[in-house]
Amino acid sequence: MSKIDQFITSNKERFLEELFDLLKIASVSADSKYQHDVRRAADFLQAKLVEAGADRVEICETKGHPIVYGEKLVGDHLPTVLVYGHYDVQPPDPVELWDSPPFEPVIKKTDLHPEGAIFARGSADDKGQMYMHVKAFEAMMNAGEVPCNVKFIIEGEEEVGSDNLEDFLSENKEMLEADIVLVSDTDMVSNDHPSITVGLRGLSYVEVEVTGPNRDLHSGLYGGGVPNPINILAEMIASLKDEKQRINIPGFYNDVVELSPAERVDLNKAPFELQEYKKSIGLADVEGEDGFTVLERTSIRPTIDVNGIWGGYTGEGAKTVIASKAYAKISMRLVPNQNPDKITKLFQAHFESIAPKSVKVKVTPHHGGQPAVTPTDSVAYKAAAKAIKTTFGKEPIPFRGGGSIPIVALFEEILGCKTVLMGFGLDTDAIHSPNEHYGVFNFFKGIETIPHFFKNFAEMSK
Amino acid sequence: MSKIDQFITSNKERFLEELFDLLKIASVSADSKYQHDVRRAADFLQAKLVEAGADRVEICETKGHPIVYGEKLVGDHLPTVLVYGHYDVQPPDPVELWDSPPFEPVIKKTDLHPEGAIFARGSADDKGQMYMHVKAFEAMMNAGEVPCNVKFIIEGEEEVGSDNLEDFLSENKEMLEADIVLVSDTDMVSNDHPSITVGLRGLSYVEVEVTGPNRDLHSGLYGGGVPNPINILAEMIASLKDEKQRINIPGFYNDVVELSPAERVDLNKAPFELQEYKKSIGLADVEGEDGFTVLERTSIRPTIDVNGIWGGYTGEGAKTVIASKAYAKISMRLVPNQNPDKITKLFQAHFESIAPKSVKVKVTPHHGGQPAVTPTDSVAYKAAAKAIKTTFGKEPIPFRGGGSIPIVALFEEILGCKTVLMGFGLDTDAIHSPNEHYGVFNFFKGIETIPHFFKNFAEMSK
Repeated sequence: MSKIDQFITSNKERFLEELFDLLKIASVSADSKYQHDVRRAADFLQAKLVEAGADRVEICETKGHPIVYGEKLVGDHLPTVLVYGHYDVQPPDPVELWDSPPFEPVIKKTDLHPEGAIFARGSADDKGQMYMHVKAFEAMMNAGEVPCNVKFIIEGEEEVGSDNLEDFLSENKEMLEADIVLVSDTDMVSNDHPSITVGLRGLSYVEVEVTGPNRDLHSGLYGGGVPNPINILAEMIASLKDEKQRINIPGFYNDVVELSPAERVDLNKAPFELQEYKKSIGLADVEGEDGFTVLERTSIRPTIDVNGIWGGYTGEGAKTVIASKAYAKISMRLVPNQNPDKITKLFQAHFESIAPKSVKVKVTPHHGGQPAVTPTDSVAYKAAAKAIKTTFGKEPIPFRGGGSIPIVALFEEILGCKTVLMGFGLDTDAIHSPNEHYGVFNFFKGIETIPHFFKNFAEMSK
Repeated sequence: MSKIDQFITSNKERFLEELFDLLKIASVSADSKYQHDVRRAADFLQAKLVEAGADRVEICETKGHPIVYGEKLVGDHLPTVLVYGHYDVQPPDPVELWDSPPFEPVIKKTDLHPEGAIFARGSADDKGQMYMHVKAFEAMMNAGEVPCNVKFIIEGEEEVGSDNLEDFLSENKEMLEADIVLVSDTDMVSNDHPSITVGLRGLSYVEVEVTGPNRDLHSGLYGGGVPNPINILAEMIASLKDEKQRINIPGFYNDVVELSPAERVDLNKAPFELQEYKKSIGLADVEGEDGFTVLERTSIRPTIDVNGIWGGYTGEGAKTVIASKAYAKISMRLVPNQNPDKITKLFQAHFESIAPKSVKVKVTPHHGGQPAVTPTDSVAYKAAAKAIKTTFGKEPIPFRGGGSIPIVALFEEILGCKTVLMGFGLDTDAIHSPNEHYGVFNFFKGIETIPHFFKNFAEMSK
């Protein structure tokens, strides 16, 4: 057993305890009432990076939530790995659907996690995965085996669009200079089928508001004679897709890169069992764009989904009201080469154009993210694949994921630096959902794998 | 000046104070957290009926909120008037849109109410209008001029469908025996155009729930591959009306009584100014069923309106979630001879039939109400018309309203008793909305008019 593995093995309990402490901090970036907790999470990480042995550890202020930076420079001649992660989490809503409180972590066994999984908001996305890097770094430091320069950049606004990351990267290009960005914020196909994410969808996210009458009206007195903004919003949403579930926004597909038949065959080789998939989320049937498989629909095809809708009376019982306003949050997942800003503008123009003149429509863009594809023939990819093969005993599958990590495009654009997405979550971890969890197996397997990546990357970069 | 009018004039301040006390009680029947307040409102009325001089005043328990009963029997040979009203109110939501707290009544002047209007939840619907009868009765008692037997039945569940009224009427037929039911829970066209409501729409009200996946999912990982219950609910709602805004539910129009061309001409003679109407509710344009005027759309035509919708993430910021469930509250206004139970069943069957098989749909009926038309050639109508002519100086217009008072059909069916809808509200009173109010002029004009109705009804019944 290597010195690094020994250190990990003898500190497992403490690593878990520390992660629990971090998970107890409700660092919800989307909601200003958690602002103090977001700051506490940054403080926590600052302290842990110092303890682990990092230098120049700083809480860097931004216009929003701060970015935590730390580094260990071991030699000019050695390659530099920039580790990215985020300490902010999604809102826990709907809280009533959690089996245990979202910010009181607890380990429970599940079918997929016989060794137990940590249930808490952020356990997988991304605190649990990000913290693996802090602990792997501590293990390397302790063993005196740090084969590359290491830089940490851990932000607090990933769940709200990383609005201030671009400025931070631009203003600190020199400090952040690196050969590769290493991120654990994605999934593997399964614990038996380790994989590395090589493609990610982008994102355009908007909020829409439809206003009918200038106040709520009694539906008996006014019903039938006035525009009902909820009905109209429903009609507008319904019109966004056609019967083949293709998106009706003019120009939406113009820039979509279509895969070749051979590429599609390859993509569909990934392990996927439709019955299992349907069962795991309790569906009688799947649905999606005509002519594509589920794997394709959730990775190489763009989508439109309403993420939230509200208006009128939503309390107990009945209230016969015609609301003044109706709202929805709508997001589009994008694929290479769609541009989020362009898509947001197309959506906005289209949505305004289909509104009947009896109502007013307001479209507010939230945040966007570039779609990305990462190469499989790079040194970094090969270093990650070899590390996983060592610890899992299996060659990882290159996999295209459906989610978005907009920062991949940012790192490329501003730092000129590629990214390796070496994530250890599972798609069943319920991230962004009630009962989010992260396997204890996955947490320690990640800590064990990361030092191998550093070792391989140093050796293969020579 | 008559003794009655003298009494009213010298007690105006007290009458208003008492109404304020009643309005301060948050008797919201739809929400169980207000249960105690609902009971307090019943207690308040019991006391006030006793003070006014009623006999046999009782709080009658039901399976839900209680019914307050009281009577004054002045002679077997005299006709009997059953006064109906309700002391429960609509929920005050959205509370943030009120200019003053909904249960802290305050008098403010408005364009339509230069003498001031009472702003509070329930001021017009129906506490203010119901309380006019208690005070008019007190004035008649004080003057020793009670020309008919009077019975009061004041319920606490009108806003949630009067679920227990039917049983109460059936079990107390003898006690409630009457020649006419008198109700003030409707509008007049304006203070310059007094009117009596002669037709009311019925109501069918349902709550629908659409379930997709068994838990909230990450829209990046699953988006495009699974049914999104919000999108699907929107599509189902959109499909309920066609391009001419006719309702698409098979059989929906089967029982609708169409008016003759002559009747439609009459109906459209009511004062109505489209520009004023649009301006009063801040609309660029009205909309509704092709081939009908606004007056027709809101009175003689059935409608479908979504009264509330919710699902997914509705908090601050962005959350990329595919919700497990989406909900809506949907109501249909019905016209003679549509039957609410039948329409509810048609809706349910249709809504279930249009659901894609990838989702589960649940339809829960709330409450219904029969549409009603009241005769204009009856003694009671003529007594009301004459009373209004005396106090307003103008012959009232017979008017078909758009709202529902389901109890009209109940009284006819169980007690065999017709109803006169002598309401004194205005359609601009914002009932069921923020900033509900009731004109001080209307409150006192109602108290003044009611004794004339009793006098006329006694004389004309001879």
